Amino acid sequence: MINIKEDKELNVLNHSGAHLLAQAVKHLYKDALFWVGPVVEEGFYYDIDLGDIKLSEEDLVKIEREMKKISKDGKRIVRQELTREEALLKFKDNPYKIDLINNMSEDEVISCYTQGDFTDLCRGPHVESVKEIKYFKLLKISGAYYKGDSNNKMLQRIYGVVFKTEEDLNNYLKELEEAKMRDHRKLGKEMGIYMMSDLVGRGLPMYLPNGFILWNTLENYIRDKEIKRGYLHVQTPPLGNVNLYKTSGHLEHYKDAMFPIMQVEDEEYVLRPMNCPHHMVIYENELHSYRDLPLRIAEIARDSRYEASGALKGIERVRTFCQNDSHIFCTPEQIESEFKGVVELILEVYKEMNITDYKFELSLRNPEDKVKYHQDDEMWNTAEDALRKIMNDIGIPYEEKIGEAAFYGPKLDVQVRPAVGNPFSLSTCQIDFCLPMKFDLKYVAEDGTKKTPVVLHRAVFGSLDRTIAYYLEETKGILPLWLAPLQINIIPVNNEFHLEYAKYLKNILEDNNIRVKIDDRNEKLGYKMREAQTKKVPITLVLGDKERDSHTISYRLYSEANTTTLTIDEFVEYVNNRIKDKK
Amino acid sequence: MINIKEDKELNVLNHSGAHLLAQAVKHLYKDALFWVGPVVEEGFYYDIDLGDIKLSEEDLVKIEREMKKISKDGKRIVRQELTREEALLKFKDNPYKIDLINNMSEDEVISCYTQGDFTDLCRGPHVESVKEIKYFKLLKISGAYYKGDSNNKMLQRIYGVVFKTEEDLNNYLKELEEAKMRDHRKLGKEMGIYMMSDLVGRGLPMYLPNGFILWNTLENYIRDKEIKRGYLHVQTPPLGNVNLYKTSGHLEHYKDAMFPIMQVEDEEYVLRPMNCPHHMVIYENELHSYRDLPLRIAEIARDSRYEASGALKGIERVRTFCQNDSHIFCTPEQIESEFKGVVELILEVYKEMNITDYKFELSLRNPEDKVKYHQDDEMWNTAEDALRKIMNDIGIPYEEKIGEAAFYGPKLDVQVRPAVGNPFSLSTCQIDFCLPMKFDLKYVAEDGTKKTPVVLHRAVFGSLDRTIAYYLEETKGILPLWLAPLQINIIPVNNEFHLEYAKYLKNILEDNNIRVKIDDRNEKLGYKMREAQTKKVPITLVLGDKERDSHTISYRLYSEANTTTLTIDEFVEYVNNRIKDKK
Repeated sequence: MINIKEDKELNVLNHSGAHLLAQAVKHLYKDALFWVGPVVEEGFYYDIDLGDIKLSEEDLVKIEREMKKISKDGKRIVRQELTREEALLKFKDNPYKIDLINNMSEDEVISCYTQGDFTDLCRGPHVESVKEIKYFKLLKISGAYYKGDSNNKMLQRIYGVVFKTEEDLNNYLKELEEAKMRDHRKLGKEMGIYMMSDLVGRGLPMYLPNGFILWNTLENYIRDKEIKRGYLHVQTPPLGNVNLYKTSGHLEHYKDAMFPIMQVEDEEYVLRPMNCPHHMVIYENELHSYRDLPLRIAEIARDSRYEASGALKGIERVRTFCQNDSHIFCTPEQIESEFKGVVELILEVYKEMNITDYKFELSLRNPEDKVKYHQDDEMWNTAEDALRKIMNDIGIPYEEKIGEAAFYGPKLDVQVRPAVGNPFSLSTCQIDFCLPMKFDLKYVAEDGTKKTPVVLHRAVFGSLDRTIAYYLEETKGILPLWLAPLQINIIPVNNEFHLEYAKYLKNILEDNNIRVKIDDRNEKLGYKMREAQTKKVPITLVLGDKERDSHTISYRLYSEANTTTLTIDEFVEYVNNRIKDKK
Repeated sequence: MINIKEDKELNVLNHSGAHLLAQAVKHLYKDALFWVGPVVEEGFYYDIDLGDIKLSEEDLVKIEREMKKISKDGKRIVRQELTREEALLKFKDNPYKIDLINNMSEDEVISCYTQGDFTDLCRGPHVESVKEIKYFKLLKISGAYYKGDSNNKMLQRIYGVVFKTEEDLNNYLKELEEAKMRDHRKLGKEMGIYMMSDLVGRGLPMYLPNGFILWNTLENYIRDKEIKRGYLHVQTPPLGNVNLYKTSGHLEHYKDAMFPIMQVEDEEYVLRPMNCPHHMVIYENELHSYRDLPLRIAEIARDSRYEASGALKGIERVRTFCQNDSHIFCTPEQIESEFKGVVELILEVYKEMNITDYKFELSLRNPEDKVKYHQDDEMWNTAEDALRKIMNDIGIPYEEKIGEAAFYGPKLDVQVRPAVGNPFSLSTCQIDFCLPMKFDLKYVAEDGTKKTPVVLHRAVFGSLDRTIAYYLEETKGILPLWLAPLQINIIPVNNEFHLEYAKYLKNILEDNNIRVKIDDRNEKLGYKMREAQTKKVPITLVLGDKERDSHTISYRLYSEANTTTLTIDEFVEYVNNRIKDKK
């Protein structure tokens, strides 16, 4: 979707839209006081103090009508520059604007814009006339604390958007509708995937039974893949002694994203923001020979990071999240083959999970930047060349991003473009020469000397939570069979005559680890079948006399009208194959 | 094992043993200064300041020899009472004893005991003569901070034990040896189950690859059992807003066992000590009808509790631990059947896991105690009668413990007696009428009114960590096939001729989810076979010409000498059956 704030013309048009909104509100609510009305990614908003009056969605319709009237009137929008004294006098009845003026720096030009009977303090620029603000829509209303501080008064924030043509506006509204439909927060609630509660805490998702099935299926899926590739899984605690993060350097570089420190007896603990230090300690626990390498330590690990409450979003941006993390300890000679293995794993997972819109980015150092980067030209050149070679060998295109490497080494990020919103980094593989040195890790090389291993940090799902959000939005909640919390819905045509056969089938299917329910409510058949569609159940069985007597199954797939009849064995095989093939 | 501190006679004898130890040390190390020498569960110890001299295990032999000499001398042990001034004068050269004297209350009688050339400040009592201290053994030496404060000087602590007969002493030492062999801390290290690191933090276990396999197998085992019984699993965050624990009452009653509070923006967070409050919020998230009940919310959940560092012990007593927790929300009428279901599940698990030495305890309220217990006679009588009825119906004996109920309701605990150490509560099922009220939980009853559900808190494995410790000690690390991290060790007789067949078999076994390794090191066959025994691998395959040519398998079980030959299919079936049957 278009970013209105970043489109120069639309930015001005929407800013003028905010003024038009304010003028209309002023016409309808004489005592309205205005604070600020900026342009944002999705359009504009204005924060308004209406005293005790609480606006509803219906009021937005009235305000929109008034805006249309003013727009038709076609008044010019006129800029005027003011001295500080003139400005304070002009806006003396609005304490919010007075506060804005008082907070302006000495050398700032103070200006206001007038359109007909309405004047607003504003830097501008604006369009020439209110006539130009023709294709707009008020989108929603919400509360917003004055200056974002919960100790202050709650103002009312009205959101809207303006376009240059009716077609643009309609397309945008359609996209918005689509985005809303796909929003994982909406789907997550409807499908019983997760819930949030202020009593439990902001940014702390609770996965509900359906969500846990989805979660656990993904977790087992990726862990099994890792086991096949020789990863060894561990389980480390969700917190650690502060000294661990002093040793790793995270306390110095990463403190802002960490939770507060807890004092326990003579120790200081902190919730872990990542797992690298724990895994370094595990490596260090034993003496290693070059023959033991590569050692691939993996963990499906829950981490906790501080995020400002304003930045939290569903399970996309949370304060505790989980990554399928791994640290591969290897010799310098093994970097290439290990890195290749990681890329292959990522591609395999993407193919099976039908993730198709992604690109590879190679983040390299900026050799000019002597401050940010660990200084070792040979190491950087070797590692970066190795990365390029691997990518070229595999034959997949990639972009190089100079100056985007981590301070400890170059990395590969996989940027995935979701159905809605901006691309994000789903998978990563990073080469690290620093952390092993900080923890003084060693292995006995073939020549008997002690050498420092290299570490590859990698995650296929950088966040399982984020992956679930992404997958819900991609599929609009129509999950493939292997991930669907409920896979099969059995509807007996008549409870009296067909429930027994339904139960018989349910047992057979459950013995095959298939997730199945019988809908034996006293509702009409049509109603139950429609509900199975609404609930996006992949397969619905309707069992009547025919099926019972011939010991067969008639199934219907989600969103399809036709029915297929199979023997029980055939059906079990069909379902198992689809689950195995992730279709 | 006997608790020496609690045995009156042995207590006195061991206290005298401490004095004998001190006298011998004084003979050998003229400058030794003594602090305290108390009796403990396992015998006695004395904390000694030896300046720069660091004692080794060999020094203990010398000290023991000196003790024997003094004992033979047979001096009487004589008590003398002193005024404070006399005491301060007598012990003027020992600042530790001076400190003890200064910390005695005004009205306390100060006494000392003399045996030959040695006098110690002591309350007594003691045996009559050092002759009686004949059958003793010094057990170990360790460091101990003066007054247990790490800012103070580190003293040397020598442990020992005295018995009345040689037979008693020898039996005790044998038991001690056995306990040491079974100690899960020793086995856990040898078998690569878990590690601890002060850098990561005290009481925070890190499960290593072998430990994780064991953990994950147990976790899947109990979760699958729960799924079959209609439990719904969720996943909630490892921390929560403090308000959650204010609502539940835990902040008031349980604060000492909680980690410090973390301030995050305008919220206060705390690591969760248990999962009940999170699960209450999940129940409250939806409107429930009596038709939805019972609702069995379950979670394999990691909790964090503050334990004093002195109380920590391996993975038996830790600061983060995991329980297979569940909260069953039901109507009062359903208590009986739900409770029965829980007891059945516990018995089923114990049987399959070969846990045989346990007893059931019914913890009831003390009706006289009007302060501790939630006041509702009818509720208590109903619940307690229901519990008794259930236990009698199932027909298993139980003990009633008056006054041991939780404040919110009666409970059933299953006390398991381990091979070493004291019985502990492995499983629990508690009836709770209070928490649902505190969270104002409701369901719509059949008559349309809103009623409060009852909650059963239950855990089969009160702590997975504790369960693993217990299981290691019970089995001496010889885990049954289904739990063994490595199930099958394949040894090719000759790498040149038999490795290919070994790899072929490995693939087949791995496709059957069997954990298998090939030992293809260039070592002698006998060496490899002995090592497989030391490492307690349940099944060892030895593959030579015969096996390769006939496409068969020859296997040998742990600790057995004979070999059995089977076809590949027969062997896979044999292994799968043993795993399924948990043999």
